[in-house]
Amino acid sequence: MTRTHAFDLAAYASVVNARFELRMRELLPREAPPRLLEAMRYSLEGGGKRFRPLLFVATLDSLGKEGLCYLDVGVAMEMAHTYSLIHDDLPAMDDDDYRRGRPTNHKVFGEAMAILAGDALLTEAFRILAELPLRHADFPPALALELVSGFAHALGAEGMVKGQVLDLEGEGKELPLEGVEEIHRHKTGAFLRYAVWAAVRIARPPREAEDALSRYAERLGLLFQVQDDILDAVGDAATLGKTPGKDAAQRKATYVTILGLEEAQRLRDRILKEAVEALAPLGEDAFRLEALARFVAARDR
Amino acid sequence: MTRTHAFDLAAYASVVNARFELRMRELLPREAPPRLLEAMRYSLEGGGKRFRPLLFVATLDSLGKEGLCYLDVGVAMEMAHTYSLIHDDLPAMDDDDYRRGRPTNHKVFGEAMAILAGDALLTEAFRILAELPLRHADFPPALALELVSGFAHALGAEGMVKGQVLDLEGEGKELPLEGVEEIHRHKTGAFLRYAVWAAVRIARPPREAEDALSRYAERLGLLFQVQDDILDAVGDAATLGKTPGKDAAQRKATYVTILGLEEAQRLRDRILKEAVEALAPLGEDAFRLEALARFVAARDR
Repeated sequence: MTRTHAFDLAAYASVVNARFELRMRELLPREAPPRLLEAMRYSLEGGGKRFRPLLFVATLDSLGKEGLCYLDVGVAMEMAHTYSLIHDDLPAMDDDDYRRGRPTNHKVFGEAMAILAGDALLTEAFRILAELPLRHADFPPALALELVSGFAHALGAEGMVKGQVLDLEGEGKELPLEGVEEIHRHKTGAFLRYAVWAAVRIARPPREAEDALSRYAERLGLLFQVQDDILDAVGDAATLGKTPGKDAAQRKATYVTILGLEEAQRLRDRILKEAVEALAPLGEDAFRLEALARFVAARDR
Repeated sequence: MTRTHAFDLAAYASVVNARFELRMRELLPREAPPRLLEAMRYSLEGGGKRFRPLLFVATLDSLGKEGLCYLDVGVAMEMAHTYSLIHDDLPAMDDDDYRRGRPTNHKVFGEAMAILAGDALLTEAFRILAELPLRHADFPPALALELVSGFAHALGAEGMVKGQVLDLEGEGKELPLEGVEEIHRHKTGAFLRYAVWAAVRIARPPREAEDALSRYAERLGLLFQVQDDILDAVGDAATLGKTPGKDAAQRKATYVTILGLEEAQRLRDRILKEAVEALAPLGEDAFRLEALARFVAARDR
């Protein structure tokens, strides 16, 4: 994959993100009470990496479909991701005061409004997916319905919420590595896999490419988490926008607390290699996804 | 509408409810963590009136469609209704310790699990709607998508969540009657209107019947709330399963605190009359819906 070296991921991401921000604003619910909308936007526009929409668009582009034409799906993903962060930060959950260098939603708007802003973001995300055929004349209703159903699976009691429950139940326990992986395969992995899967359902590539992307998405989710744990151990507070060292302080089982830092870094490098190798069947077209995986492994926030 | 007198609503409801309970259990997410599933079922199976599914089924039956064939939509409604109750009862929201005569979800499972159980119920409700064509071979995907989109509108930032935000913002304020109505038109009305609307979308009656049902649903939502406020003023704790007098104690603006008890009762009777009159274009077929409205106006819990 020689093109990777010539591909400027940052420039690509900034184009996607600029279009994304505009589209997201267009899709906000207009008749929402002003304070609710403010709370939703506070967290939506709080400097997130927009990683899920970017992964989705990059997958479509790699499959020869114009990813920017399907940004609405990315907006739905980012809204649902933001809902999960707002609820996760609540005092009854992780009790975080800061996120991305700013006070968390409930610190600014109060707990009740934060709960409702999260509820609204999740619901509006479903609305946006369900309205795809209204906004895109050629979008088949059956495909939109498939995206809704997959979304619910990725986010619900067998997906992301399951991961959060496992995480909750694992607190203060000595989890084995498999336990930590089980948490993250659901808590973050299911959603990242959905981003790739949704692009695959839209582009309908040959089976070989579909299988390759499914393996890639699975490794990418793992990579994401291992690097998260590494950053919590060695990251810089100002860059991270949150306080590192929290996992160790809370005696939370992570890749670093179980394997040690060096072994976790070796694992990360091995998973990155596997993610890139998984892309082989896509040939040169996979350069964006390869760059994304390298970015995930090297990111400092 | 002479048949009303011969129609046994309680017997009808018990048939619908018996089938409903079975179907609901079949549609629960099988791979959910046991404790999460337990929390979801605790509130789902906690003796709710199943009013939304019943209204939906009765509307279909009135339009000549077999309502029981579409129970999945009712299950989705009841799951979403239950999510809203769990989140509404949280300490940061209404801070209720009892619901339907039992400790509220967070009192039994803790706040974190209650938040997640609510999140999961909302998400699974969308899954069930999106999977209608998977479970019913003749269910058009475009219709399922329409039900998903309407559901999100009824529940989201312009629907139920909007009502909850208005309610939150109205606390401790002297609201005029229009303010109280605005809250309830969103907080409970949007969802009840959805139950009737969903049946209409499935049965596709002539325009005249559709308009009649839309007027009926609007009056029914109002009727529901006025009677709720009356019950809070004069209801019996053991029958209600919660403590009456809470509105007055919290100095909450209700139909009773604004109008006084007698005027509120007169308003209720007038709205009931309007609801029944709205059904006229449906002729004799509307007897179930008329009985439902009379039940709502006369209920003691």
